[in-house]
Amino acid sequence: MPHPEVYLKKNEDKRLRKGHLWIFSNEVDSQRSPLELFSAGELVHVKSADGAVVGTAYINPQTLICARLLSRKANLKCGVKFFKERLITALALREKLFDKPYYRLVFGESDGLPGLVIDRFGPVLSVQITTAGIERRKEALISALIELIDPKAIILKNDNSQRQLEGLSLESETAYGQIPEPLIIEENRSKFKIDIVNGQKTGWFYDHRNSRACVAAMAKNQQVLDLFSYTGAWGIPAALTGAAEVICVDASESALALALENARLNRLQDKMHFVRSDVFEFLKQARQENRLYDIIILDPPALIKRKKDFKQGYEAYCRLNQLALQVLAKNGILVSASCSHHLGRENLHEILRSSARHIDRHLIFFSYGGQGPDHPIDPAVPETEYLKTFFCSVSPSL
Amino acid sequence: MPHPEVYLKKNEDKRLRKGHLWIFSNEVDSQRSPLELFSAGELVHVKSADGAVVGTAYINPQTLICARLLSRKANLKCGVKFFKERLITALALREKLFDKPYYRLVFGESDGLPGLVIDRFGPVLSVQITTAGIERRKEALISALIELIDPKAIILKNDNSQRQLEGLSLESETAYGQIPEPLIIEENRSKFKIDIVNGQKTGWFYDHRNSRACVAAMAKNQQVLDLFSYTGAWGIPAALTGAAEVICVDASESALALALENARLNRLQDKMHFVRSDVFEFLKQARQENRLYDIIILDPPALIKRKKDFKQGYEAYCRLNQLALQVLAKNGILVSASCSHHLGRENLHEILRSSARHIDRHLIFFSYGGQGPDHPIDPAVPETEYLKTFFCSVSPSL
Repeated sequence: MPHPEVYLKKNEDKRLRKGHLWIFSNEVDSQRSPLELFSAGELVHVKSADGAVVGTAYINPQTLICARLLSRKANLKCGVKFFKERLITALALREKLFDKPYYRLVFGESDGLPGLVIDRFGPVLSVQITTAGIERRKEALISALIELIDPKAIILKNDNSQRQLEGLSLESETAYGQIPEPLIIEENRSKFKIDIVNGQKTGWFYDHRNSRACVAAMAKNQQVLDLFSYTGAWGIPAALTGAAEVICVDASESALALALENARLNRLQDKMHFVRSDVFEFLKQARQENRLYDIIILDPPALIKRKKDFKQGYEAYCRLNQLALQVLAKNGILVSASCSHHLGRENLHEILRSSARHIDRHLIFFSYGGQGPDHPIDPAVPETEYLKTFFCSVSPSL
Repeated sequence: MPHPEVYLKKNEDKRLRKGHLWIFSNEVDSQRSPLELFSAGELVHVKSADGAVVGTAYINPQTLICARLLSRKANLKCGVKFFKERLITALALREKLFDKPYYRLVFGESDGLPGLVIDRFGPVLSVQITTAGIERRKEALISALIELIDPKAIILKNDNSQRQLEGLSLESETAYGQIPEPLIIEENRSKFKIDIVNGQKTGWFYDHRNSRACVAAMAKNQQVLDLFSYTGAWGIPAALTGAAEVICVDASESALALALENARLNRLQDKMHFVRSDVFEFLKQARQENRLYDIIILDPPALIKRKKDFKQGYEAYCRLNQLALQVLAKNGILVSASCSHHLGRENLHEILRSSARHIDRHLIFFSYGGQGPDHPIDPAVPETEYLKTFFCSVSPSL
């Protein structure tokens, strides 16, 4: 049976022809295809104004992004077979990249599965569903995952606030099997305990993996300061490869408790220190006491969550980077990251240039680390790019 | 004795205050400081229109970029001590990054040494001087290099056509010691023979080192096509880590001869094939014969050398990338690079997006590899960024 048709207004298929997957509600010809006739998550056949096929999408009449393309073919079925095909392609890339099953298996639009993120923690899959279109098909998804991956457990970590926009409830549940306790993953030759249920997002951030490896490779005999350390993913591999000392600073007591547990798991508790503090306050005090660090990792949470917070967030990034530069040893290394989608690569570039000039340092970028390869970017969907990481070497002014 | 003064026109110090190092001839107040009074390579004290110190530069009255700042301090001396200080800073970064002496030691402006590039090939230093300002001080530079590095040989590889703009002759000479024969370097666990005298630029391109390592890490059992292979720097480490077959294509007979020698040096001649051909022609024929490759490396020489060649060069990049995508196996990997400074990262991004859509493929970027860490970028001097490399995973259209 063909899917009901959704007609776009004239020219509104152009962005989609260029490769984007999103349809905004104001792009739909609501006279020919009134949105209120559709139910949340229903599959539709998207057509341009002149009736040409655009593809198959799932729709949600109550959201601003009212439909997301799943395919450029008309009347695609979206059951177990569909999910298996997409997962096989996603898996093909990850298996080329990694020799152990610790990675982001599905990264939404980039893997042709808008509204879906899956992290693989060895035998456990942590699944985030953010749209009604995927929610409505989660049984097919879970069947496909079981057939293809044969995991010990599948957790639906559905507590992302984006779900509320889609009319979905916030909840976490074990949809299949049972989570082994403790759940330990490996990254950069280090072991980490994961707390899926109480952790942020899926329970772990694989996205900085390569950048963390780069820091570790340079850390021998260095004083390392890991700011916004969360559970120690930067600091622990640095300590493991021979850092003289690693200081993790975070405002969250539970994150630091897990970081300490992770330090013990890797037998690194003697060279790691954990400071519960606001990072701004920590840096101001370090500056006052003339403490200096050889490598500083500055990886804050998104300081710009919505576009309208840009100015305030930009200033916060400036202050943080300037403070960090002021406690960096001569010829030291600053690793400065931003995961705010609204702060572009060029913005962070400018923040670093101007911060260094402001306090009269010569700062050069020797590496750029974006999101890891298991978080691929679709060049036609700019929203799939969010993580920026500049590796800076900082010396006295020329 | 203070250096002679050069006054800038009003506001022309702004870009320099932001961190740039270049002074264009039309920015100089030629009434207060007539350019014809200076000799090529002379040191000057640069001042803003209101007389404030901008710094010490070397000048060349006959070039468009008529002066380059060496320091933000006035009346800097630029002898052995100056070079040693700059080299120590440059060395500090490289020694953190590499455990063997194979790297670009000095990358011009980024290392505070405009007009100078030095590659370190174990005991040999290959030096490129492109400005009169450095040429005039080469004795001090060579003394500093000998004191600090104690090399077996220093080669001045001064055959870059940029020298002619500065009124310098094209010549290569051994300025110190003697080059060991053969000269072998190591990169990505592979050995390569270097021909400094007859090779391009300094004799080797370290800039893609990390990207080459990424390809090698994914190459096991894959059919690898290395286009514009030069002397095999991409293909050989891929073969070494277990590629099923590596095909190197280049138009230069001497480059391929050295590539074959390098294959033998690494005992890989059985799985490597060398094809002397125009790359466009090779790809067209491969398409006609339905040959497919799992990994394709597309690393052409600069197809846009001058700004005015942009349109023609852009089209050449489009054709090349489309052709490469057409001979890529399902879920294959395209590594697409450009070293043209005039083709920005966003241009290559767009070429890849549009090429994939044009032939109906779903292309995602899973990694970005720019110039290696021994080619640092000064964020205040955009001209120091030139190399773009996108790692693409390509599957059938959604």
